[in-house]
Amino acid sequence: MPSTELSAADLQSILDFTTKLARTAGELILQGSQAIRSSGNVDEKKNSVDLVTEYDVKVEELVKKELGNKYPDFKFIGEESYAAGSRPPLSDEPTFCVDPIDGTTNFVHGFPHVCISLGLIYKKVSVLGVIYNPFLEQLYTAIEGQGAYLTQGSRAPAKLPLAFPRPLPSLSQALIGIEWGSDRSNDIVRAKGDSFKRLAGNPKEGVVGGRMAHSLRSLGSAALNFSMVAQGGMDIYWPWDVCAGSVIAQEAGCFLAGAHGTPLDNVASEAWLKGRKHFVIRAIGDTETEKGVDAQKRLVKEFYETVEDVEAH
Amino acid sequence: MPSTELSAADLQSILDFTTKLARTAGELILQGSQAIRSSGNVDEKKNSVDLVTEYDVKVEELVKKELGNKYPDFKFIGEESYAAGSRPPLSDEPTFCVDPIDGTTNFVHGFPHVCISLGLIYKKVSVLGVIYNPFLEQLYTAIEGQGAYLTQGSRAPAKLPLAFPRPLPSLSQALIGIEWGSDRSNDIVRAKGDSFKRLAGNPKEGVVGGRMAHSLRSLGSAALNFSMVAQGGMDIYWPWDVCAGSVIAQEAGCFLAGAHGTPLDNVASEAWLKGRKHFVIRAIGDTETEKGVDAQKRLVKEFYETVEDVEAH
Repeated sequence: MPSTELSAADLQSILDFTTKLARTAGELILQGSQAIRSSGNVDEKKNSVDLVTEYDVKVEELVKKELGNKYPDFKFIGEESYAAGSRPPLSDEPTFCVDPIDGTTNFVHGFPHVCISLGLIYKKVSVLGVIYNPFLEQLYTAIEGQGAYLTQGSRAPAKLPLAFPRPLPSLSQALIGIEWGSDRSNDIVRAKGDSFKRLAGNPKEGVVGGRMAHSLRSLGSAALNFSMVAQGGMDIYWPWDVCAGSVIAQEAGCFLAGAHGTPLDNVASEAWLKGRKHFVIRAIGDTETEKGVDAQKRLVKEFYETVEDVEAH
Repeated sequence: MPSTELSAADLQSILDFTTKLARTAGELILQGSQAIRSSGNVDEKKNSVDLVTEYDVKVEELVKKELGNKYPDFKFIGEESYAAGSRPPLSDEPTFCVDPIDGTTNFVHGFPHVCISLGLIYKKVSVLGVIYNPFLEQLYTAIEGQGAYLTQGSRAPAKLPLAFPRPLPSLSQALIGIEWGSDRSNDIVRAKGDSFKRLAGNPKEGVVGGRMAHSLRSLGSAALNFSMVAQGGMDIYWPWDVCAGSVIAQEAGCFLAGAHGTPLDNVASEAWLKGRKHFVIRAIGDTETEKGVDAQKRLVKEFYETVEDVEAH
């Protein structure tokens, strides 16, 4: 048993606090974006695609400090400290899991799909998620068992998905979120490019294995892509890592899959934290002939028959 | 000479009116999106990708009626009437050019990158543009010679580009907007997919002709992609058709090119209205060794050396 016990009231109080904190962090992200784009000052880490800036660290330090003051007994996993290899082992204790700036390439370019992602793992379950995009004032929140919500600008919170989850007969009806990622070696780019061609291509006009999806979209932020599937604005998103997004997606009725389409719940594990192959599909309404949950599984299968699932480095 | 003369004060008054009208149309677009996604009612035109709904017509009828009441002497080119072949020949008279719902696939899916695009052509020059996304409350406006602006939510209008236009040494530094489009025949999908692979791929890791761009993004709305380049959030967008976007982009210091990279100004012609091969690159700051306008032309050349420029149907 963990030494700290969390009640439903505790979770609501943590949601209020982390939501305010996400908005404060959002202000710093906006300032950083302006400063970086005005100066042209950009650190390059792995390669020119994989950009990290000083503000990534600044935002994480701000959030870590505020969470530490308010919740001194909670553990903290930050993307920056994680990357530096100084992550505590996963336990049953309440553990904040923070990606200070998700969409760093967007951040550097001023492409306004950038967010802070703030999750809470408790007894190894992802129980609370806050994702905030300060550029477009999109706030996504969820507590396990209490639904997921989008607060857009000054509007009232709206429950996710935003509309009744329509049936999804096949990939040919789907709007699919994809990303080129940062590994641009020949094997990866070929496998991804060919997968995207099959997803988009018309089998009746010569594309072998073509699925003729409605279209493909790329926003460049994993957490916002997850949130977009949760709200029902995208049908499928593949592939990237998760954290706060998983509880938002799950509360919105999404189906989550790990590598090669195997089902995935929001129970945290070392592999779950490291995974970069996750797939998410939106809530699907039942039809007369098929339950929505069965449709989700059928479409995961169709998807993995279409794409080539190569491991990026 | 046209029978109607427009002063600067007239243009400002038209901008005020069309901005209000775009917001009214935006409300109808939001209603339509909710209604369509709740009912699942979608007309399919050319194929499952090329979706048009009854709201496309409804919004155009609303806008046409309001503009006709207020400006009875102005001509009107609507996307829907254009598609129906009943477009007046282009003249020197003031002519509104309206795409009622740009991003119809997004509209049907509830992917919140959807806008109304409302332009004014006068003496064959695109002199005024209003682009409004009601989902994210993004309002882009421009009058020729007076700059372009973004009004995000309840914030004050911000001049475009939003930050100082940094240098852009090569495509390897660029965030590039791409679209898969609605023609999914094998030739098109192969040419596009291979072009995208070269734009993304790392030449040092085996991708022949790879440019290793920072990344590729797809929003699914031509007018919003144009606006994103104007605001500096994307460096390049290719390829799609234009109307209101051109004056916004031009006022924000962008360089516009037509088919195969030939320069394009915002002078309307039949070919300009029909063109679907336009390319736009953001304002680029001068460096010690190169003027921004020369950098724009150099990058257009680099781009067209990288992509395969196949004509879609």
